Amino acid sequence: MKTKTFASDNYAGVHPEIMEALVLANQGHSGSYGGDVYTERAIQKFKEYFGNDIEVYFAYNGTGANVLGLSALTHSYNSIVCSDLAHINVDESTAPEKFTGCKLITIPTTDGKIYPEDIEDKIQRIDDQHHPQVKVISISQTTEYATVYTIEEIQAIASVAKKYNLFFHMDGSRLANAAVSLNKSFREFTCDAGVDVLSFGGTKNGMMFGEAVVFFKPDLARNFKFIRKQGMQLHSKMRFIGAQFEALLSEDLWLRNASHANRMARILENELRKSPEVTITQAVNANGIFAILPEGIIPRLQEEHFFYVWNDKTSEVRLMCSFDTTEDEIYNFGEKLRKLLQGTEPNA
Amino acid sequence: MKTKTFASDNYAGVHPEIMEALVLANQGHSGSYGGDVYTERAIQKFKEYFGNDIEVYFAYNGTGANVLGLSALTHSYNSIVCSDLAHINVDESTAPEKFTGCKLITIPTTDGKIYPEDIEDKIQRIDDQHHPQVKVISISQTTEYATVYTIEEIQAIASVAKKYNLFFHMDGSRLANAAVSLNKSFREFTCDAGVDVLSFGGTKNGMMFGEAVVFFKPDLARNFKFIRKQGMQLHSKMRFIGAQFEALLSEDLWLRNASHANRMARILENELRKSPEVTITQAVNANGIFAILPEGIIPRLQEEHFFYVWNDKTSEVRLMCSFDTTEDEIYNFGEKLRKLLQGTEPNA
Amino acid sequence: MKTKTFASDNYAGVHPEIMEALVLANQGHSGSYGGDVYTERAIQKFKEYFGNDIEVYFAYNGTGANVLGLSALTHSYNSIVCSDLAHINVDESTAPEKFTGCKLITIPTTDGKIYPEDIEDKIQRIDDQHHPQVKVISISQTTEYATVYTIEEIQAIASVAKKYNLFFHMDGSRLANAAVSLNKSFREFTCDAGVDVLSFGGTKNGMMFGEAVVFFKPDLARNFKFIRKQGMQLHSKMRFIGAQFEALLSEDLWLRNASHANRMARILENELRKSPEVTITQAVNANGIFAILPEGIIPRLQEEHFFYVWNDKTSEVRLMCSFDTTEDEIYNFGEKLRKLLQGTEPNA
Amino acid sequence: MKTKTFASDNYAGVHPEIMEALVLANQGHSGSYGGDVYTERAIQKFKEYFGNDIEVYFAYNGTGANVLGLSALTHSYNSIVCSDLAHINVDESTAPEKFTGCKLITIPTTDGKIYPEDIEDKIQRIDDQHHPQVKVISISQTTEYATVYTIEEIQAIASVAKKYNLFFHMDGSRLANAAVSLNKSFREFTCDAGVDVLSFGGTKNGMMFGEAVVFFKPDLARNFKFIRKQGMQLHSKMRFIGAQFEALLSEDLWLRNASHANRMARILENELRKSPEVTITQAVNANGIFAILPEGIIPRLQEEHFFYVWNDKTSEVRLMCSFDTTEDEIYNFGEKLRKLLQGTEPNA
Repeated sequence: MKTKTFASDNYAGVHPEIMEALVLANQGHSGSYGGDVYTERAIQKFKEYFGNDIEVYFAYNGTGANVLGLSALTHSYNSIVCSDLAHINVDESTAPEKFTGCKLITIPTTDGKIYPEDIEDKIQRIDDQHHPQVKVISISQTTEYATVYTIEEIQAIASVAKKYNLFFHMDGSRLANAAVSLNKSFREFTCDAGVDVLSFGGTKNGMMFGEAVVFFKPDLARNFKFIRKQGMQLHSKMRFIGAQFEALLSEDLWLRNASHANRMARILENELRKSPEVTITQAVNANGIFAILPEGIIPRLQEEHFFYVWNDKTSEVRLMCSFDTTEDEIYNFGEKLRKLLQGTEPNA
Repeated sequence: MKTKTFASDNYAGVHPEIMEALVLANQGHSGSYGGDVYTERAIQKFKEYFGNDIEVYFAYNGTGANVLGLSALTHSYNSIVCSDLAHINVDESTAPEKFTGCKLITIPTTDGKIYPEDIEDKIQRIDDQHHPQVKVISISQTTEYATVYTIEEIQAIASVAKKYNLFFHMDGSRLANAAVSLNKSFREFTCDAGVDVLSFGGTKNGMMFGEAVVFFKPDLARNFKFIRKQGMQLHSKMRFIGAQFEALLSEDLWLRNASHANRMARILENELRKSPEVTITQAVNANGIFAILPEGIIPRLQEEHFFYVWNDKTSEVRLMCSFDTTEDEIYNFGEKLRKLLQGTEPNA
Repeated sequence: MKTKTFASDNYAGVHPEIMEALVLANQGHSGSYGGDVYTERAIQKFKEYFGNDIEVYFAYNGTGANVLGLSALTHSYNSIVCSDLAHINVDESTAPEKFTGCKLITIPTTDGKIYPEDIEDKIQRIDDQHHPQVKVISISQTTEYATVYTIEEIQAIASVAKKYNLFFHMDGSRLANAAVSLNKSFREFTCDAGVDVLSFGGTKNGMMFGEAVVFFKPDLARNFKFIRKQGMQLHSKMRFIGAQFEALLSEDLWLRNASHANRMARILENELRKSPEVTITQAVNANGIFAILPEGIIPRLQEEHFFYVWNDKTSEVRLMCSFDTTEDEIYNFGEKLRKLLQGTEPNA
Repeated sequence: MKTKTFASDNYAGVHPEIMEALVLANQGHSGSYGGDVYTERAIQKFKEYFGNDIEVYFAYNGTGANVLGLSALTHSYNSIVCSDLAHINVDESTAPEKFTGCKLITIPTTDGKIYPEDIEDKIQRIDDQHHPQVKVISISQTTEYATVYTIEEIQAIASVAKKYNLFFHMDGSRLANAAVSLNKSFREFTCDAGVDVLSFGGTKNGMMFGEAVVFFKPDLARNFKFIRKQGMQLHSKMRFIGAQFEALLSEDLWLRNASHANRMARILENELRKSPEVTITQAVNANGIFAILPEGIIPRLQEEHFFYVWNDKTSEVRLMCSFDTTEDEIYNFGEKLRKLLQGTEPNA
């Protein structure tokens, strides 16, 4: 596509430093399935960020990372509490149900987040053989509405998990954007805040493929190598995931990418706020914006910079920025928007 | 690793032309999940080889391609007949059982192949509700012993499949090596010979990641997009699988890579045959050699050019060549072998 | 238990005519797994009620009947729409998810029923590979609140199913009570109203064990014998299920039992309505009553005639009548209730 | 059927003492799902036989008992070693694979048994993530050839289990017949010999329905109530299973039934041995006989006393005796056989 889109951060390509790492890793032979130095060094990088007492496993994609991580925490008669918008609930087909056997118990959300009281309401009929037994609370950070849980919000959920002896899972496919938004280290709002297992996203922050499952209680990962293989998520030429993560976690690349994407979102927010016809529906915490546009202009606006309609009924759209979004593209988009709204641009 | 190994074709890296294609595909934004021109062009390439009446879906790895392809052919009360050495039986954890629900019915093999009479023996208790109902015959081409089915052997199995109304699945993680060995087009020994669904390997022939599931009866793929997503094998930045396959299937790259690997295996075979202490145990049809070595020399021999012991009890080893194996490495290996056998190289 | 309970119709025993049928069936040898005359005759009875163009399979219990019936209608990437109170959602552990692989999409209900508009709201993202694909609407008749769908309500749901090419499943563990309530034949509010697959309950209406899965489109049952066996629901000495169903469907036993139970519920309702401190929360359509009682008296009231508290927070209780409930027990219960409310019975 | 068959012990009906127990249990209301005195007393009976340190759960049928018991012992990436004739391998559809996710690793058997050396051969690639990880050895006692493992044979298998940290599962659908054959208490050849989990059969020894899963290490049953419910094997009116088991384990009913069946098999063996045209192929240890008959006479012989052909190719048949087989029926069968062999009975 000639111009870049606001469709999704997975419309973006691969960051040049990641691509360079891939090229550099392509030397001679390497042990397969993780028996290589790139994987080893990447895991070491994770330990620099999260501490040494972790277990890290690479997977292909976010669905794989989420489903396998949840699988490590559950028996098939368990249930998993999440928001009704959670990626695991609405965008991973029935992979969670099929692979874990568990039920997803959903909480309606208006801001992408779930809250302790609502979670406690869902913890029912403990030890009752007839009823799915809640075992995991899963949240997305950033949320599917591109909002960001505060550390206090995360800690409060962790308290519920602890109170009821549940595990706490975080889908961090856009974790870097959350870190930038919070201006906190990864640790502070994951393991230190009570998260047990984390899906750490790579693809949406400039990688070609690859996500990580990070266990903060190593014992939980005891059987994970078997779960990953059975889950068809074990890559043979693993060095090419390892090399990408090593690059992403080196020289603050993850931070530079996410900071840029978040900054672009703020600029885009400013552009949108110039038009009173546009209603921004969610707090712009990270790299995505949700806004209601006049329905009629959407198709024309999508032509040059494609984006997705989130809700057909309300004309709410989602605009995602990524590491490669440019200010010019945003200004161009804003100008186009205003022309369409003013009718100076023919809307047909 | 400084020198290259005979461990596996997945110890090799990425062919430079593939890497170049990845770099070239890294321009601007592309539709995700397959909505991109690279995927489109790669599928077109597959049609050039296999005809227009196919459906092609990309997956991450061989286990994914096999398991999802089999899943499209079966109900969970079915069984799948394969060799006891089949990758789906011994090297994919219990992914086939867990994802399909089916039982694998295995036939002991001495040459990696299964034969019509043995298959017919396993087709039992048709329509008996108590018994797993056979629905698929699955073979590997090349086999796990690096042998290659002839077209006639494949046709004979296809006849059994037809007679009993079964599907015929081929695990072609090294299909290119088989094509070179047979000196036949892909079509001649797959769809034209009666195969219904094929796992077409990319990773072992010079790609970074990516395999294809090829359906020769499009109707069988009717629901496959859902199966793939549920199977956690749908890549978001799909263009990077598409671009690789496009390169692999262009300018005979697949053929050059596989021809080279097979030729290296023949040279290695010649080297081994110089030493009467070495017994080659399988026909060298493609890019792998199975041989019994004097047990004592194996560790020393592995030091410089690592390879796997296939059978601890018999000291049978497996030596795999890949697109990047060099003649020098083979001669060096042969020389080392002979020195160790002659005792002119200290064995400790 | 000396006195009978209002706990559940499965606290009741076996109706004497059913027990007699079991004794009579216990003569000599019979073919196993359904190859017996009792099963044959029972199926014939079902055809008298539902017409000849059906397929009937017996299962052990309601969970088995529901889960296997749903399994026959779905692929694992599908979803099933039901009420949030549905037995399949809250009382069958995660058997539906584990066995079918599907997600249950739930609609909040206040009267136990789901309605067309709410169902349509849940039918989203058709053909979108990322999203579970709705394939079945499942309702319970009677509902978990012991309310009963009218024929018109069922037809309206059937219209939604037809419109979106979905299957329509009915959990009829208390179908006889619904038939009595509606004063209609089974056909009129099942197959004739658009239901595709029915779980027909036996155990809660006086049988010892055994439920039936009735397919109104025989083609849907094509593979069901394999699904039932795999689902561990195929009984060897099947004649003892067949004989029970034959008796239940003979001489209006099902009707007598359900009529009695429903009538007892109406009498119990009258008793409860005598006390203004008691709030009946649901329409009393069939054999169950939901009522809010003053919390303090519940434990004393449970002593003699046990029943379950449905909602701890609101002190809502569930009172179920069965074929063996007597008027005396109800009057006794009513009297005890009034004494406790008046404080003439010591509450400790 | 007018005359009794040698088809299977599940062609037999219910022993009168069991039927009487069912009638007696049919008084008033009882707690459901096992909260009743019959279940309590039945469990107590099991403890009298197996000791107090056990956990007992009732299920509907043998497939349920086996599959759920195995499920309690495994993760889905495990494998289970059994004979190729094992009921779990050939007569339970793919319920074991679907419900546990595990692979069954089979050992060819000629006498129905598996032996330590063969089992050890199957314990491969420990801790290798690519390979199904063996976790359970499962044997049938009596075997599918109606042979009986000696205590020493069982102990030897238990030693292998212990050596490799595996669980030892016994399918005892005909355990009583084995106890009679060995003339030993249940304990001696189950828990005392090293078995961890036992399926204890009721249906084939005179019950109407019901099997038990007995855990000899209570910790293994920790989550079993959830597994059973999810496995659709939890009966609501549980008292009717409890009452049957209480009767079966009282006044030596199990012993009388099994002793009779075994004795009938010995008499039948004697009858068969009178005809040199008949070859008995397996040791007659319990209540079944395997014999090769002249093919031509089989259909006529089946007319009056039905039995199953075990192997079409060799004309091997299976003749099962049950608690209700009479000496007269056996003598009649023998006479008929001899007449057919002598040609004095027209064979058409």
